[in-house]
Amino acid sequence: MQMYDLINKKKNKGELSKEEIDFIIEGYTKGDIPDYQMSAFLMAICLNKMTHEETANFTLAMANSGDVLDLSAIQGIKVDKHSTGGVGDKTSLILSPMVATLGIPVAKMSGRGLGHTGGTIDKLESFPGFSTSLSSQQFIDNINKIKLAIVGQTANLAPADKKIYALRDVTATVDNMSLIASSIMSKKIASGADVIVLDVKTGSGAFMKNYEDSLALAKEMVQIGNLAGKPTYAVITDMNQPLGRAVGNALEVREAIETLYGKGPEDLLEVSITLASYMLLGAGRVSSAEEGRALLLETIENRTALDKMAQFIHAQGGDDEFVYNPTLLKTGKIKYEVKSPSDGYVKEIKTDEIGMASSILGGGRITKDSKIDLSVGIVINKKLGDKVSKNETIATLYANDDQKRKDAKKRLLNAYTISKEKIKKPPYIYCIVTKDGVMNIG
Amino acid sequence: MQMYDLINKKKNKGELSKEEIDFIIEGYTKGDIPDYQMSAFLMAICLNKMTHEETANFTLAMANSGDVLDLSAIQGIKVDKHSTGGVGDKTSLILSPMVATLGIPVAKMSGRGLGHTGGTIDKLESFPGFSTSLSSQQFIDNINKIKLAIVGQTANLAPADKKIYALRDVTATVDNMSLIASSIMSKKIASGADVIVLDVKTGSGAFMKNYEDSLALAKEMVQIGNLAGKPTYAVITDMNQPLGRAVGNALEVREAIETLYGKGPEDLLEVSITLASYMLLGAGRVSSAEEGRALLLETIENRTALDKMAQFIHAQGGDDEFVYNPTLLKTGKIKYEVKSPSDGYVKEIKTDEIGMASSILGGGRITKDSKIDLSVGIVINKKLGDKVSKNETIATLYANDDQKRKDAKKRLLNAYTISKEKIKKPPYIYCIVTKDGVMNIG
Repeated sequence: MQMYDLINKKKNKGELSKEEIDFIIEGYTKGDIPDYQMSAFLMAICLNKMTHEETANFTLAMANSGDVLDLSAIQGIKVDKHSTGGVGDKTSLILSPMVATLGIPVAKMSGRGLGHTGGTIDKLESFPGFSTSLSSQQFIDNINKIKLAIVGQTANLAPADKKIYALRDVTATVDNMSLIASSIMSKKIASGADVIVLDVKTGSGAFMKNYEDSLALAKEMVQIGNLAGKPTYAVITDMNQPLGRAVGNALEVREAIETLYGKGPEDLLEVSITLASYMLLGAGRVSSAEEGRALLLETIENRTALDKMAQFIHAQGGDDEFVYNPTLLKTGKIKYEVKSPSDGYVKEIKTDEIGMASSILGGGRITKDSKIDLSVGIVINKKLGDKVSKNETIATLYANDDQKRKDAKKRLLNAYTISKEKIKKPPYIYCIVTKDGVMNIG
Repeated sequence: MQMYDLINKKKNKGELSKEEIDFIIEGYTKGDIPDYQMSAFLMAICLNKMTHEETANFTLAMANSGDVLDLSAIQGIKVDKHSTGGVGDKTSLILSPMVATLGIPVAKMSGRGLGHTGGTIDKLESFPGFSTSLSSQQFIDNINKIKLAIVGQTANLAPADKKIYALRDVTATVDNMSLIASSIMSKKIASGADVIVLDVKTGSGAFMKNYEDSLALAKEMVQIGNLAGKPTYAVITDMNQPLGRAVGNALEVREAIETLYGKGPEDLLEVSITLASYMLLGAGRVSSAEEGRALLLETIENRTALDKMAQFIHAQGGDDEFVYNPTLLKTGKIKYEVKSPSDGYVKEIKTDEIGMASSILGGGRITKDSKIDLSVGIVINKKLGDKVSKNETIATLYANDDQKRKDAKKRLLNAYTISKEKIKKPPYIYCIVTKDGVMNIG
């Protein structure tokens, strides 16, 4: 088999076999296939597309290019949730204890990542003492005992994806649905989950800005997961404004705990409950999402989810007193209220800009080695469609540096558009994508 | 300017400006743009095409990437003829002295090249003493004096084309009309000619096997030349069988001289005269191709073309006695006649296979450093449509090694298809492409 012929095949709109795709991914990972051949091939994929079958094989080949986690020592069906990323997204912190307390094992492997806030691991480090450096045995023991554990990502997870991603990033071959979907799914599949629930964000703060692209990505990932033998569901959720009100690490943990107390924002609760209900459905714990929803709401009312959170924080070395007294979580020393420049209704929130403002305050990682300030962030006081008077607070900044506070304020004001007309609020959730099709919501 | 954005632009079917194309070619030649970006870009070109304007700018940028010959010291309008390559193509040897004797300067820069026979330079080295190692001054002086000189190609002619060609060759980005056309034309333009006449071959022995592709390539090259300010004509000629009868270096020189004596094969004469008539037209020597044709036929009848050939061979150190006694040109020691296996008509000649047979005998260069045996080759006794009896000679091999002779015979027999039905002979010339359109012939 020759890489030349395979590039040519895709250039001529041919369909590659599993053996051919394995040859490419294996050869490229090993270094037998040079970058210049791979980039020509990736461009041919961008322009001529891959079929669902090819995409699934591409994903599996990348998943198998490095370590594949064996979670068979964990009892029960392992369900993983993955979000395509958004501003103020702290659903993992809410739904993980909910699902765990209902007996479904949550074996989470999480990255730190770059962006406007840290990853789930960074956020959890707001709890003094909390650590994700568990041995494989501790990880498995914790899950078997309390159903919930989180570790950092191993270095050798889907190395083919890492290498291909880096090449796509410099050759303008990023925005192909098959390549995006296979990049996400290869890591999920290598992480060893049995069932996958995807939170596909859509809107100004999402990777996919418009609904059609988000739906296409969701369908592609659901296809891949199911072809790979992993029941997969996707929920398309709104990201035209931050989810909930808190953006920033400790602030988001506070809000997650408030939600487990039943005092969280409605959108955050709704999205968390919906995702969690499909986790329960996928694990066979319930026979419908509606049944799951009822059980999940109970875990808030009876505080079992909150107790599970405390138990989990404690099991990984964290101080669980902070779960019961979330105001103990440290926030920035400078608290600054940003005022509305005019009367009207919030018409638009450039969500990416809110993320940038959080980053500027020090809440996000700019490079892989940046240190995050967990205490800084933003609370969004006025959301889309809210009525606002001139000089009323639209957002509150928590900062530790006055210059950064000033820069973030500028960004924040720039993110808001206030209009005279009344504005319709966006939905929280658009639809659910399963292997059987698309279910529209609301 | 960033290469990433330019790849992206072409991926999204955008049209690149002259500045953008210059940036790419210059950056890649210098090594600032890596292979993996260039190959992604080339694949985007293959799939999304370039406009005529882009192709012309791409060509000029490659032409300007190295030395550009300055022929301004040569009096008159310099006309260059280029062939896309075929088997038995010795038109340069015929039309160059014809055109020169009519007062048009022929300043030829020629490669040795790989293939079934050597290039024009190799063929001319059949004349003992002939050399193409002229200084620039000698080259210019010779042309001003006798209107005809040939030198080898300088190493630094269109280095961008060399580098891009090598990359295309390993990334399945060869078969794009714009890239093929710009590769040929960049070298022609850098060679300094004022007017370019192209011989675009079509058929089983040509780079372009079918007529539509040949026409598209011809149109693209004519466009490029004219956009670059060089009047350019293309003649599409048949390559479904070798041109003339001789294939092999010394054998082809013999045939060329016979043609200058008025005793050459009709197809070879016709193609040479047609190409030469457009050289005269392009140089403004005549006001129509028909007028040129009459003048050219005269140069054969009155032997002025033959004398010009002798004068040219002598001026570059060769023995001009061989021009007047071409049987002095050395041919292979083993002369072997290949017989027809059956009665019938020649239905097909796989022209590539004839080229391979010549290569096997030692007449072609397999690698850049191979030594060519100028004396070996093939004479085609039966051409398409010819009636042939069983055991009648269809071709004659001239070899110096009996094993090679046997191998070549096998190839040759495999190249011929003899059929019972009468066969229509293909035309010599299909059409002429000028900036004003396509003129069909015959």
